[in-house]
Amino acid sequence: MSSIRDVARIAGVSVATVSRALSMPEKVSAESLEKVHAAIAQVDYKPNMLARNFRSARSYAVVVLVPDIANPFYSLFIRALEDRAQQKGYAVLLGDTRGTHERELEYIRRVETRLADGIIQLRPSSEKSLNNIPADIPCVNACGCEYTTGPAIRIDNRAAAKTMVDYLISLGHKRIGVISGLKDNPHTVDRLEGYKDALRSAGIEFDRDLIAEGDFTMWSGLNAAFQFCNMKNRPTAVFSMNDEMAIGAMQTLKAQGIRIPEDMSITGFDDIAYAKYCDPSLTTISQPAEEMGKMAMDMLLRIIEGEPLSQTECVLPTEFIIRKSTAPVKIS
Amino acid sequence: MSSIRDVARIAGVSVATVSRALSMPEKVSAESLEKVHAAIAQVDYKPNMLARNFRSARSYAVVVLVPDIANPFYSLFIRALEDRAQQKGYAVLLGDTRGTHERELEYIRRVETRLADGIIQLRPSSEKSLNNIPADIPCVNACGCEYTTGPAIRIDNRAAAKTMVDYLISLGHKRIGVISGLKDNPHTVDRLEGYKDALRSAGIEFDRDLIAEGDFTMWSGLNAAFQFCNMKNRPTAVFSMNDEMAIGAMQTLKAQGIRIPEDMSITGFDDIAYAKYCDPSLTTISQPAEEMGKMAMDMLLRIIEGEPLSQTECVLPTEFIIRKSTAPVKIS
Repeated sequence: MSSIRDVARIAGVSVATVSRALSMPEKVSAESLEKVHAAIAQVDYKPNMLARNFRSARSYAVVVLVPDIANPFYSLFIRALEDRAQQKGYAVLLGDTRGTHERELEYIRRVETRLADGIIQLRPSSEKSLNNIPADIPCVNACGCEYTTGPAIRIDNRAAAKTMVDYLISLGHKRIGVISGLKDNPHTVDRLEGYKDALRSAGIEFDRDLIAEGDFTMWSGLNAAFQFCNMKNRPTAVFSMNDEMAIGAMQTLKAQGIRIPEDMSITGFDDIAYAKYCDPSLTTISQPAEEMGKMAMDMLLRIIEGEPLSQTECVLPTEFIIRKSTAPVKIS
Repeated sequence: MSSIRDVARIAGVSVATVSRALSMPEKVSAESLEKVHAAIAQVDYKPNMLARNFRSARSYAVVVLVPDIANPFYSLFIRALEDRAQQKGYAVLLGDTRGTHERELEYIRRVETRLADGIIQLRPSSEKSLNNIPADIPCVNACGCEYTTGPAIRIDNRAAAKTMVDYLISLGHKRIGVISGLKDNPHTVDRLEGYKDALRSAGIEFDRDLIAEGDFTMWSGLNAAFQFCNMKNRPTAVFSMNDEMAIGAMQTLKAQGIRIPEDMSITGFDDIAYAKYCDPSLTTISQPAEEMGKMAMDMLLRIIEGEPLSQTECVLPTEFIIRKSTAPVKIS
């Protein structure tokens, strides 16, 4: 196995220069850096990067806190985050919190003890919702909401929800059910405001009985849909706050003999891969998850490296996608 | 901020003992260890664990190489791997290789330069398939195949495929199409053998025209299914080598007016969450992904920590799940 001395000898520089080239490349001339890298490649030297980490008090790793890795919406984010981190020489430490604060705290501890340099948060957070992350830890929310404090990338959840419900109203629907996420989830709050905005614009009164609570899983959507099946005055359309709950709800509706979209329209949110493949394919809102992930990672690495941020919040546009799960209301 | 000196003072031990308790706890008496931990908690000391890593030449991180994080089958593995690693004090570094050897090599480099202690491989590999990982790197394949070399957890792919095709034959199907993964993928090879075993047992001749190649994505399943729609002597059942391709194929078949299962049965493999929610729900093989992930992580940590392995290969049982996408062949 080749040593740092071999590299120094071949590059024609001192051992200290090789060491600096590995741990603080910004302090080495471009010319020396090139010689060192060429020599490393020539002798296939495998530096102990733990020494670099120790000297620079940097782990070159970032924790990604994800509420549920089994949700395909998050995998799109994670893929973009990992890709960007890799390009910049950082590793992604996966923090599947399963929605618990205890597991979030364990991962925050990793940053506090220097095993990671910062955090990407995928759980939406707001001032009202519990936010565990101490202010001195570099952190960016890649999936923020209207009230997220600190650096965040987000979409305009309220406006996107309004667009969707406006569309259902334009198809003649007046009784529009909602399958929401958990009541205190900031995305639920924002999207519910958008739903109410649309009703208000159209002069339709808000009816609390039309809100069925889920938790963003397919199973919860399947259960929530029963609330609508059993109603005397059934909604003719359902706005689900994500695609997974819409896909779960479809199974209940079909099993009850309710045809989609002839008897009931249904819409989702996120545009996960399955939204195109479910039957009927799902009208939904597409979030630019890849772009959001990249921007969030760039923002976090700037914070970690002490560079100034030009902006601490970035709101990206969504896309409204009409597929086959929606139709004009039946005239009965 | 409290220091290591504060901890030593309160615990009534030397600074060196606190340091050892953090980096080499096995060299400290249980009594001292307890005093140190109590003192750390009392003064809320946040040790620089990079020092521990440097001294122990250990990063306490494991790379998980995943071919495609967007595939929900892998997220079940990742969740189990992360959970187990977390319990044992290790972090999971996510390595989304997107099926490229270049990205695998970049992650292998992390282990070679001590930024990770070992690798969990989720890509099936065999002697015949390219395997980049040097023999001196601790590595376990959590998703192996019949010919995987080195420590591996796997199912019996060949037997599981035979079970599925036996079932289709028992329903009276004789022309059974296959949607395969890429030809050189070891899982494709193993599952195709199982398909052939079943045909052989039933005295049905193998027909190469009934094999449509996909790449384990929904989109490839959608495309592969056209091969069957356009055949003069159409298969009456299709064995898809994973659920995603089966779900993609369903869309093509339905669009061509082929009813599932009345006109054509279709089966999957893996039992991802959507297999229950697609329409009709999918008859499939369930892999114990959670158990496989846990066992693989345990095996890897034993190797990293220099403990002996009682076995280097472990074959776990699968479950055969009958849902609504399969039916007896139509008598025409």
